[in-house]
Amino acid sequence: MNTKKTRVHLGDRSYTIWIGSKILPLIGELCKEVLPPQNCVIVGDSNTLPLFGKECEASLAQAGYQVRSWQLPAGESSKNLNSLGRLFDFLVESKLERISFLVALGGGVVGDLTGFAAATYMRGIPFVQIPTTLLSQVDSSVGGKTAVNLPGGKNLVGAFYQPKLVLCDVNLLSSLPQKELSGGLSEVIKYGVILDTEFFGWLEDHLQGILNLDAELMAEAVRRCCELKAAVTSDDERESGRRAILNFGHTLAHAIEQVYHYGTYSHGEAVAVGQLVACRLSETLLGFPRTETERFANLLKKAKLPVAVPAEDVQATIDQLISATQRDKKTLEGDPKFVLAEKIGKVVFGYSVPQKLLRDTLPEFVRKIEK
Amino acid sequence: MNTKKTRVHLGDRSYTIWIGSKILPLIGELCKEVLPPQNCVIVGDSNTLPLFGKECEASLAQAGYQVRSWQLPAGESSKNLNSLGRLFDFLVESKLERISFLVALGGGVVGDLTGFAAATYMRGIPFVQIPTTLLSQVDSSVGGKTAVNLPGGKNLVGAFYQPKLVLCDVNLLSSLPQKELSGGLSEVIKYGVILDTEFFGWLEDHLQGILNLDAELMAEAVRRCCELKAAVTSDDERESGRRAILNFGHTLAHAIEQVYHYGTYSHGEAVAVGQLVACRLSETLLGFPRTETERFANLLKKAKLPVAVPAEDVQATIDQLISATQRDKKTLEGDPKFVLAEKIGKVVFGYSVPQKLLRDTLPEFVRKIEK
Repeated sequence: MNTKKTRVHLGDRSYTIWIGSKILPLIGELCKEVLPPQNCVIVGDSNTLPLFGKECEASLAQAGYQVRSWQLPAGESSKNLNSLGRLFDFLVESKLERISFLVALGGGVVGDLTGFAAATYMRGIPFVQIPTTLLSQVDSSVGGKTAVNLPGGKNLVGAFYQPKLVLCDVNLLSSLPQKELSGGLSEVIKYGVILDTEFFGWLEDHLQGILNLDAELMAEAVRRCCELKAAVTSDDERESGRRAILNFGHTLAHAIEQVYHYGTYSHGEAVAVGQLVACRLSETLLGFPRTETERFANLLKKAKLPVAVPAEDVQATIDQLISATQRDKKTLEGDPKFVLAEKIGKVVFGYSVPQKLLRDTLPEFVRKIEK
Repeated sequence: MNTKKTRVHLGDRSYTIWIGSKILPLIGELCKEVLPPQNCVIVGDSNTLPLFGKECEASLAQAGYQVRSWQLPAGESSKNLNSLGRLFDFLVESKLERISFLVALGGGVVGDLTGFAAATYMRGIPFVQIPTTLLSQVDSSVGGKTAVNLPGGKNLVGAFYQPKLVLCDVNLLSSLPQKELSGGLSEVIKYGVILDTEFFGWLEDHLQGILNLDAELMAEAVRRCCELKAAVTSDDERESGRRAILNFGHTLAHAIEQVYHYGTYSHGEAVAVGQLVACRLSETLLGFPRTETERFANLLKKAKLPVAVPAEDVQATIDQLISATQRDKKTLEGDPKFVLAEKIGKVVFGYSVPQKLLRDTLPEFVRKIEK
């Protein structure tokens, strides 16, 4: 297959996303187009560095860069100020200077942490992203959001900061567990719902092929998502307006992740349930057709995504979820804002959902389990 | 006296600096001009909060803001990722949202840390600066540099981020120890050397009055420095070019601070010695007149600033200083860059100084002391 590319247009912060299969060995050459010969640090985690670190290092070294690698323990719990401090110490020890750069080789945790380190080390050095999960290829590779978590909440500290280039190699996805792949598909499906009814239909037709890791279909899905996200974020880099539509399903997803301690559910799985709840709320508030909610639920199930969360005490869990939405960082004056859908392919943002409606809607999505 | 003001022009990030005596009680009213009624957190240290916290809180509360205060232990050693993490936890606990704001009530440490917290909390919330030292009134209140230190070096992590307003009350300076005041004068004198020969002459005439805390003279000095710095930084917000002239004396000053462990010398004192070394280097490299170096040294002495650093082992100290300049974050490929002077009022930046010349020049400025 041919390598595809998408350009993200942001003035002097514009960059190219390269998408293809088995293109990781090209990283050195691609970097040479935008970064001078310098020293760099590859940041990966205990999953990605053993799998892809050597190939990435070799390609960068071959292209004339001095390379060192730094490993983070895999998992969301690494995305904190402590890890960041240790990474900074490694950058100093590696004598990184203002024109040196970082390479994020991993999923969202690695990308967000590395991006934030790049945004703030010496008040900003360049960085390159090699997302290794479907979620990070379609989500964090565009948009420039970087962050770490605080004990009090996810992504509460961060910066808007753009990479110099992004390389999405769909072949790297073949080592992903099913659960991770499904999590990514949740965001892929989201792009259909919020922006592109035709893409939603294409996904209904091709989901099985994508789940089977057909490289051509996967690359096309990634390309379309990046293109859609790039169009939205180029208009609204710092999330003052329309970009908020990307948070479809996210208000509740963040609450689920918090209540379940960022563990039981991947981000994408939480977003699946969050989107379904948003569809149901949209039926009441915007006349979203009930049949479309079912169509949407079917696609989630086909992608092996959850359509509800389990709880021993349903009422207590609902209370926790509602309370968590009120701590969401997009909350203004205690009133959580939702993105809701008018139809598949068209959403509105900044919708205030009355707490009572949320409370009435949630029981369908919180299923009682026995101890 | 009348309150003076200077506008810093940076497009939609423009802001006003208010300068006067006994104007701290106006902070609430001034905030109302640029910030909606919201909750805010005042960040101060164990010197500034006990002295000025109540007055600041009262004025903000009077203007309709919900106010909490957070105290940092005074001193450079607080300016680290640990303090930052504790501050972030307090902001979460205080339920600060995206339109909430921070108020930095203190010197450079408080301003830099608070500014960086504001730049990154929820990817950026507004902040207000009330600098309480002469150094921070003339230096960190303009330019948008925020940062924390790493074990490996000063200001290695940070962001460019502008305040919404700055209030410089020269009356707050009356509680400063002599050493702090002198440290600030080192930067005041710097503006004369790098940009304004007339201001340098004015300082020669009025230094005694300023040292005696004459409010009118002090406010005029602060105003002129802010105006000069604003002119330079508006042209070059992110330090790609001309702004570098503000680092006159700083390459060596940072080295002195590191070698003396950010303790023996205040930043301004280190900058005094750094500037004097830069003058001497300029004699050799740019024909800066030797008589002007003497004139400069006399002004430093009048301001009770050091003109050399002491050392038990002179040679070892010189080696450490040279090695530290090579780790400076403005160093490109191991070659430290200096700002040098052609004459008083005109400097050039990015000048490579041969290590041998630096080694030959330093002995005059490192004085042998007995154990």
